[in-house]
Amino acid sequence: MKAVVFDGRLRVQERPEPPFTGGETLIRLLKAGICNTDLEITRGYFRFQGVLGHEFVGLVKASRNPALVGKRVVGEINAACGQCSYCRKGLGRHCPSRTVLGILGRDGSFQESFFVPEESLHVVPQSISDDAAVFVEPLAAACEILDQVRIRPEDSVAVLGDGKLGLLVSMVLSQTGCSLALIGRHPAKMKLLKTFNVETLLEDSSEKRTRSFDFVVEASGSPQGWEQALRLIRPRGTIILKSTFHGEIPFNPAPLVVDEITVVGSRCGRFEAALGLLHEKRVDPTPLLQYRFPLESAVEAFETAQKPGVLKVILVNSDD
Amino acid sequence: MKAVVFDGRLRVQERPEPPFTGGETLIRLLKAGICNTDLEITRGYFRFQGVLGHEFVGLVKASRNPALVGKRVVGEINAACGQCSYCRKGLGRHCPSRTVLGILGRDGSFQESFFVPEESLHVVPQSISDDAAVFVEPLAAACEILDQVRIRPEDSVAVLGDGKLGLLVSMVLSQTGCSLALIGRHPAKMKLLKTFNVETLLEDSSEKRTRSFDFVVEASGSPQGWEQALRLIRPRGTIILKSTFHGEIPFNPAPLVVDEITVVGSRCGRFEAALGLLHEKRVDPTPLLQYRFPLESAVEAFETAQKPGVLKVILVNSDD
Repeated sequence: MKAVVFDGRLRVQERPEPPFTGGETLIRLLKAGICNTDLEITRGYFRFQGVLGHEFVGLVKASRNPALVGKRVVGEINAACGQCSYCRKGLGRHCPSRTVLGILGRDGSFQESFFVPEESLHVVPQSISDDAAVFVEPLAAACEILDQVRIRPEDSVAVLGDGKLGLLVSMVLSQTGCSLALIGRHPAKMKLLKTFNVETLLEDSSEKRTRSFDFVVEASGSPQGWEQALRLIRPRGTIILKSTFHGEIPFNPAPLVVDEITVVGSRCGRFEAALGLLHEKRVDPTPLLQYRFPLESAVEAFETAQKPGVLKVILVNSDD
Repeated sequence: MKAVVFDGRLRVQERPEPPFTGGETLIRLLKAGICNTDLEITRGYFRFQGVLGHEFVGLVKASRNPALVGKRVVGEINAACGQCSYCRKGLGRHCPSRTVLGILGRDGSFQESFFVPEESLHVVPQSISDDAAVFVEPLAAACEILDQVRIRPEDSVAVLGDGKLGLLVSMVLSQTGCSLALIGRHPAKMKLLKTFNVETLLEDSSEKRTRSFDFVVEASGSPQGWEQALRLIRPRGTIILKSTFHGEIPFNPAPLVVDEITVVGSRCGRFEAALGLLHEKRVDPTPLLQYRFPLESAVEAFETAQKPGVLKVILVNSDD
């Protein structure tokens, strides 16, 4: 079978099909999404080597649980110990001994067959297409914001960045009924939100909104995003840091203290919330899907995904 | 009358007694505390020039409100417009057109007589001594933390820094019944907490508590405090930034995102909470009071307050 491996260099390898041994559930890949984290791994961040990929929809090939076999599933990416204080609070995403699919200590989903713990799987309702299901993981990350802070209809919220993350976050936050502005650089991308109740603003024209937003979500993935967030947030407001960027930025903490700003780091979220939004057709992320490549063309797919302005690129298991 | 003026240089000036004109309340100073912010102003931060001082207890000399005359009072330092959206929410401390006593656009309390808006004043109960009343303003700033975050008895909390601010914050937070550790460098200062239920730890011995605290309060006033807070906080924990330090520090936001840390900037607080703690004798800050100087010796008092290891220095109106 084909597997997309990074070991300092990205390539597609031929590997033997793994046998089911009665432990974790064996999944046959249908479709998998390329995420910015995958691109960052190939740039040498995260120190991960192995099979890449953490966004996927697949079919259960073999499982200890016979009810799962043949089902279409998506899977949470953090495989937790189930025993520690975080796991006991339902926060396995922070389990200190967790492995993370295709990111940390565990081979990922960019291969024809792979293993995922049964506890991580969610059956996908028929109402959700394969294309939409590929977005469950990043959509759950967007939903995480609403598990961390309470956004009310009377709040004003800015989302910084019109990449995949910023667009998904905008779709999710628009469900709260708040006054929402997406601040980006690409009118064509921002147009994808035209069916949502979201104001779109070019970066330059955001100047006059200085110190006005109750919440600012930093989803630009750029160091400038942090400065922009500090400029747009009102005193006593909340900045949500959604994107990671690597390296250090100069930081003066005094304005945070003087204006009593809250900053909330936000990462992965619960899949239930994302599946609910897709099932109820409240959010349709598929307009973000721009390119499909067969698994064996993964290197070309990664090259495409890295091009400026490209949104979602997915890999398709051509066995299907 | 004598007034402690900073105009690029700190000095005690003789000025005419201000006449009451029917507007703001005229206060005769009893005692005033020197705060780190005062020291920072004399080092050229804040760009303030004028009469210094914002911590005080005094007697009302003249007021539009006859019931106040002769009363012993303390005063909130932010003089707000009373009309804007912040003021209407009871957050005059964030009013964009506020002046701040001895810090921004308004002469301060280091003079024999000075003006404060009537709305800013709180009558001090007889149960609270002048020495204790001088601490109401910094104690209110410590209480502000409990207005911003909910600390429960089962939480573990670290306070970084054994200066005035760290000691007051520890006294206040110990009232929650949480597991509290003060992490400092000066055993003699930390001993002042011996009647409180607070564990005291030297900085070096805090290593083994890495990633263990639910809350970390940064009150050290040093750039190292920020790094230390990031080391000690657990995933999903909350860092409270209490002290300002000037200048920029290198900051890598990725760990905040990965561990979903919350950072809360915290500044001034409500006086009611601090007066309550003093009235009920739940907190006695007076052991922090180390030196008293008459108003005319303010320059010497400032020199003393800047010496390493010195805690509270107060100015006394020798007219009393």
